Amino acid sequence: MTPSDLRDLYRGYIDCLNHQDWSNLGTFIDESGYYNGKLIGLSGYRAMLEKDFREIPDLQFNISVLIAEPPHIASRLDFVCTPASRFMGLDTGGRRISFSENVFYEFSGKKIATVWSVIDKQAIEAQL
Amino acid sequence: MTPSDLRDLYRGYIDCLNHQDWSNLGTFIDESGYYNGKLIGLSGYRAMLEKDFREIPDLQFNISVLIAEPPHIASRLDFVCTPASRFMGLDTGGRRISFSENVFYEFSGKKIATVWSVIDKQAIEAQL
Repeated sequence: MTPSDLRDLYRGYIDCLNHQDWSNLGTFIDESGYYNGKLIGLSGYRAMLEKDFREIPDLQFNISVLIAEPPHIASRLDFVCTPASRFMGLDTGGRRISFSENVFYEFSGKKIATVWSVIDKQAIEAQL
Repeated sequence: MTPSDLRDLYRGYIDCLNHQDWSNLGTFIDESGYYNGKLIGLSGYRAMLEKDFREIPDLQFNISVLIAEPPHIASRLDFVCTPASRFMGLDTGGRRISFSENVFYEFSGKKIATVWSVIDKQAIEAQL
């Protein structure tokens, strides 16, 4: 795949998340995917995302920087959202918060096989 | 520059940090560099790094993932180090800790002009 192909594929993945189109998640996520060093698989990945949307009903993923060098993607995702109560162990008190996530993906063929994500917790703490 | 050229340049930058070779920092950092949305310039960048090494005397930068698509680099940096007292607002109590940083760079010519860094504070908290 070219960098451009990989970027298109990744944008399709982000659309899938934003539409909570869980029945299509397997198009993008490997059956034996790893997330931050843990084997969680497709089912664990879906469970994690469903939990994220339960805890943050207005969650939307916005790509602000996208770097593609096959088989890797690096993406900076920006969020403006309203966690229902707690997020990352913090009591957000129903506030609307903004923060970023810097996340790296390794693809195996056309599917995401490994994810390394870091969320900017300090930026959230600064808003509380 | 090719991805390979950019990777070589970036590895030179990391060597510069690990050798605390501040007189050469201007080879890699733009005079009007931005860090996490703030204009800090070369002098501010140097001051930030010198402070990091004062607070963490055994600080070393280790590249674990490196993604290059000119003019961008994305790098996952792994750290195993011993902050002297506090780090990221946490009392680390002289413990040796390990954590990662997911960081994105935009180059202007051969110099880093913009940095977007997120450090995995949650991983540090889990060790305390």
